[in-house]
Amino acid sequence: MIRFENDYSEGCHPKILELLRDTNFEQAPGYCTDVHCEKARDLVREACKTPDANAYFVSGGTQANKVVTSQLLRPYEGVISSDLGHIATHEAGAVEASGHKVLIVKNEGGKLTARGVSEYMENFWADETREHQVQPAMVYISIPTELGTIYSKDELVKLRETCDRFGLILYVDGARLGYALVAPNNDLSFEDIARYTDVFSIGGTKVGALFGECIVFPRPGLLDKNFRTLIKSKGAMLAKGFVLGKQFEALLSRTEGSDEMLYLEISKNAIRQATKIKNAFIDKGYKFWVDSPTNQIFPILPRMAIDELKEHFSFQIWPDLGQAELITRFCTSWCTSDKDTDELVEAIRNI
Amino acid sequence: MIRFENDYSEGCHPKILELLRDTNFEQAPGYCTDVHCEKARDLVREACKTPDANAYFVSGGTQANKVVTSQLLRPYEGVISSDLGHIATHEAGAVEASGHKVLIVKNEGGKLTARGVSEYMENFWADETREHQVQPAMVYISIPTELGTIYSKDELVKLRETCDRFGLILYVDGARLGYALVAPNNDLSFEDIARYTDVFSIGGTKVGALFGECIVFPRPGLLDKNFRTLIKSKGAMLAKGFVLGKQFEALLSRTEGSDEMLYLEISKNAIRQATKIKNAFIDKGYKFWVDSPTNQIFPILPRMAIDELKEHFSFQIWPDLGQAELITRFCTSWCTSDKDTDELVEAIRNI
Amino acid sequence: MIRFENDYSEGCHPKILELLRDTNFEQAPGYCTDVHCEKARDLVREACKTPDANAYFVSGGTQANKVVTSQLLRPYEGVISSDLGHIATHEAGAVEASGHKVLIVKNEGGKLTARGVSEYMENFWADETREHQVQPAMVYISIPTELGTIYSKDELVKLRETCDRFGLILYVDGARLGYALVAPNNDLSFEDIARYTDVFSIGGTKVGALFGECIVFPRPGLLDKNFRTLIKSKGAMLAKGFVLGKQFEALLSRTEGSDEMLYLEISKNAIRQATKIKNAFIDKGYKFWVDSPTNQIFPILPRMAIDELKEHFSFQIWPDLGQAELITRFCTSWCTSDKDTDELVEAIRNI
Amino acid sequence: MIRFENDYSEGCHPKILELLRDTNFEQAPGYCTDVHCEKARDLVREACKTPDANAYFVSGGTQANKVVTSQLLRPYEGVISSDLGHIATHEAGAVEASGHKVLIVKNEGGKLTARGVSEYMENFWADETREHQVQPAMVYISIPTELGTIYSKDELVKLRETCDRFGLILYVDGARLGYALVAPNNDLSFEDIARYTDVFSIGGTKVGALFGECIVFPRPGLLDKNFRTLIKSKGAMLAKGFVLGKQFEALLSRTEGSDEMLYLEISKNAIRQATKIKNAFIDKGYKFWVDSPTNQIFPILPRMAIDELKEHFSFQIWPDLGQAELITRFCTSWCTSDKDTDELVEAIRNI
Repeated sequence: MIRFENDYSEGCHPKILELLRDTNFEQAPGYCTDVHCEKARDLVREACKTPDANAYFVSGGTQANKVVTSQLLRPYEGVISSDLGHIATHEAGAVEASGHKVLIVKNEGGKLTARGVSEYMENFWADETREHQVQPAMVYISIPTELGTIYSKDELVKLRETCDRFGLILYVDGARLGYALVAPNNDLSFEDIARYTDVFSIGGTKVGALFGECIVFPRPGLLDKNFRTLIKSKGAMLAKGFVLGKQFEALLSRTEGSDEMLYLEISKNAIRQATKIKNAFIDKGYKFWVDSPTNQIFPILPRMAIDELKEHFSFQIWPDLGQAELITRFCTSWCTSDKDTDELVEAIRNI
Repeated sequence: MIRFENDYSEGCHPKILELLRDTNFEQAPGYCTDVHCEKARDLVREACKTPDANAYFVSGGTQANKVVTSQLLRPYEGVISSDLGHIATHEAGAVEASGHKVLIVKNEGGKLTARGVSEYMENFWADETREHQVQPAMVYISIPTELGTIYSKDELVKLRETCDRFGLILYVDGARLGYALVAPNNDLSFEDIARYTDVFSIGGTKVGALFGECIVFPRPGLLDKNFRTLIKSKGAMLAKGFVLGKQFEALLSRTEGSDEMLYLEISKNAIRQATKIKNAFIDKGYKFWVDSPTNQIFPILPRMAIDELKEHFSFQIWPDLGQAELITRFCTSWCTSDKDTDELVEAIRNI
Repeated sequence: MIRFENDYSEGCHPKILELLRDTNFEQAPGYCTDVHCEKARDLVREACKTPDANAYFVSGGTQANKVVTSQLLRPYEGVISSDLGHIATHEAGAVEASGHKVLIVKNEGGKLTARGVSEYMENFWADETREHQVQPAMVYISIPTELGTIYSKDELVKLRETCDRFGLILYVDGARLGYALVAPNNDLSFEDIARYTDVFSIGGTKVGALFGECIVFPRPGLLDKNFRTLIKSKGAMLAKGFVLGKQFEALLSRTEGSDEMLYLEISKNAIRQATKIKNAFIDKGYKFWVDSPTNQIFPILPRMAIDELKEHFSFQIWPDLGQAELITRFCTSWCTSDKDTDELVEAIRNI
Repeated sequence: MIRFENDYSEGCHPKILELLRDTNFEQAPGYCTDVHCEKARDLVREACKTPDANAYFVSGGTQANKVVTSQLLRPYEGVISSDLGHIATHEAGAVEASGHKVLIVKNEGGKLTARGVSEYMENFWADETREHQVQPAMVYISIPTELGTIYSKDELVKLRETCDRFGLILYVDGARLGYALVAPNNDLSFEDIARYTDVFSIGGTKVGALFGECIVFPRPGLLDKNFRTLIKSKGAMLAKGFVLGKQFEALLSRTEGSDEMLYLEISKNAIRQATKIKNAFIDKGYKFWVDSPTNQIFPILPRMAIDELKEHFSFQIWPDLGQAELITRFCTSWCTSDKDTDELVEAIRNI
């Protein structure tokens, strides 16, 4: 069974294992106060060109979303997300478990649009009963989206302007950020993300780390006040924080012989493999649910094709309530091998 | 200014004030352990023909919804509601503030249908990622709905069957229950509500009380275990609980010279007045957003008509985002006077 | 059975019932936006000589404590209370249910001292692990305390200074405030309470109202931002808010033929009756757990005396784990009658 | 600077790094459903001789405490802990952040005694106001305690009996469990812990893992129903769960040439090194705050000695409020080297 069901099926990039091994017996203080975490923070500041940025490290993506929303919302405030947003669907109500409502705006190609947010806010302000409603205070988007699509710089700027107009915090969940930043036609950089958001995450779990997400406040001001204690109260403070720090140090360092971060360099592999698979499906005439430029692709396949492919490959199939054709998801990653991809491509050709 | 904007604009039925006055210096134990609360509970049991029912009294409707959901849901469970459900819209996220997600099924005429709930649950069970989702555990409906519509006995039975099929608790928010039970074509009784639900409320605030809702567990079993402590922990336990008990004692008692509860008797006035207003709008050729048989009606009016009526009457106008005609809501109650209604009817005729 | 077990055994002062009756059919907007609430707010501002104060009305004391702490604490912050504080003992964990820890400092005669708070804070700041601890952010005291004792102006000023020194909010739970303000040797006034606290409550439930507490922000600034929505999200917003407004309007108005608020005037009765009972116990040679100048007294009685008094009077007896003498509590109120008190005094004499 | 300040200053046991490296490119399903997690679970079942046990893996100790309490307590229930319990002191209110109060019983030598719990419960049941109090529902202890002391089998059995008598769940936080199980005079085994508790954790973070705790339900019954979704809702579900599984697989496997688990084998080193340090302090005539048989020792040292040692060694010093002698904590671990210990011993001798 070759796994294309997600981008967290394997361990981590060998350079991370090497660093963990080489520094294994270094003694360090706990709770992300060590030199590796500080190095990783410096690399974030450098990549984002934000010398005042603060960065925090937590174990997973749901945790990152939970601590960020809990930190920045007052008890009666909610966060606007698209109906497909990860916080709205696949986090078992983690945001609600902290007391906050996820406010839904319909997605367009997986994305939340500035227009959608504007309409929501205009309706809210036009409603005389708004005092009795959850107060929208934050906009949550992920780059790339749950459908693998990406935001253009223009779209992000417009969201920023909309947030400014309505006094909303803009948060980007970057669980798969690497795959967006190296996607064809992408025009966003770390610097842009930092410039146009109030807080964002750089995902490690799905982009080469054993585990871990980095939460960045580009211009912290009061936003991250006592954030470490909040993180602790959510059970999200790692005692051996240096295990997170070392991983991000490795991922955000530039690789020898290249002028690029390991994080971006390895992200490219996912795109390359996804493109090969996508082309194989196109060649066979299959359509896609959505045109994704990143590492998740969503071919619509007949049941028979699915059954055939399932014999050797694992991938996601959308809830099946009787259709003849089904939406599927194939996911590549930083470590998808040419060999595995070629086997899948061959199998697609032979459907 | 004559108020048709809601059904809680005046004090309470004079019989309640009388009872409060006549018993004012009676000494009683606190926290709903007094004889008036017990009398009210007996009247509930009698009306519902459920000798084992337990009943609790709290101050308001949002509070009732909050304590019921908090009592019956585990931390990761959610409650299914229509998109127009009060808990989904106008309670400032009270359910989320207790940690639970409100799961949305599209309303049909304000109602949640058995089919809608079934589809939601089938999708949930068909989804392989359901473990990562909020677990649906309760169905919330209100009778009448936010649009003033009512459920037929057949509809309620079907919801019950659907809940049984999927292991869901069925909760009816009866903030305006009286107005449903006396509506034309209604075929539900207290007995039916008690038979087909696991928990429901009998609203006092909007039906003749100064304030107060009665929460009924028809067959408590383990459902209401330690519910009093939960109520306390939500700040919803009234020290002078007898103030609630006396009000429900008055409302649920049969009136002299009639064999009917005061609660239902006074509810009829609201229907009678609403019908007069409805007919006045119909006579003028106006359409309605929804055909409501209870005390809330939703005529669609041109701006000019609204402006004219607004000079002398208060009523709700839906958020205005540029349409020439707007949805409005006129609300009558147990104490709407013929005089006030006649003035409104006259004004409608003269638009 | 004559009840001396608490101060919420009867209805309300007749002037409140009169006002409720006289204004019963007045139409008013909901949610405390009516003229009676506004009148009551004006009376608060006048009594406190704080023209900028905001005041809010909720149903009960636990609710008041819950909304205030939830409004003013961030998720990882806690509130300092004495070990006997109501929030620490008899609110079923309402503060914790909102996510906040109650931090304990040992009481001295029921009171929290400036020194006790200082020591707590100095220890906290001296502790290198404080980042991993709940951050103390508010001081909670009640006036009078759970033991019926009161704070002198000097003690309150010192607490204020301590709070300022450590950046703490000072909150006074005034569930029985009236009984403190008219106690012998009391030197605090509404004006003082308002001057030295950030937020306090004026209790209605135990001082003549059917129910209801008034929460006052003397200098609101940002402290009460969106407090109405927070109140709603806790289920604490009363639809017929005017029922609360009318009660506080009556209580805080000056009575004819006197230049005193009804609230303070009726509070005096409780002190007068308590003093008579206290003297009766003293005459019999009984000792007290604590010397309380307000409406709760705590004689230490032998079992036999308790058994005798229990035949005709209800009062509280502390958990009995084998002692020959037990602490008891006798509680008077705004409406304790001379007749009832005299019967108790007679019974004490005859023990 | 040689660190004796805690037991999580270094990476992990080399066998864990080896396993991570050797299996790095193995593809596995996510969220702890892989073969390594299953293997680790089997090893837990075998060690505990509980074939029906379920085991779950989370990132850290506070997280473990948070998900266990949240899973097993109803909203108004609390957990009994000693005043020194980790959940009561150093988790930034994580239990309260989930809505539950930590109920305090005074420690005896760091421990919670059956007698202490009994007294608490008897007082609770004797109190007529208990309905208005947080309901005690769970007992939390850690083995070893925060003071490094351990429970005898007899003490654990008595706690179990007390819990049974009062209907309480017994939870053992085993963040440092290994160090207890190999301590001199210890008479508890994994089997005992499993037999006498309802749920317990096996700490990895402090005993050789990079990070991770294993939560064990020896006889799950309904106790762990939907626990995976609860874990997710707290942000505690790791996508690459196999990283946790592999670590516990390595730790709980028996090592070649020995018939002992790696987990226990490496724990012994900590005891050996701590004993050497302890003896050095004894030889110099210093006293200890508490007599700890595990990896944390608490010598009481004069300021001058502290200042001297601090030049080359890091260790904890209790909050300093003016005493001439201070309590200190020296902590060894699975990987404390003879060389480091010898240097410290030498320094102690030369004070």
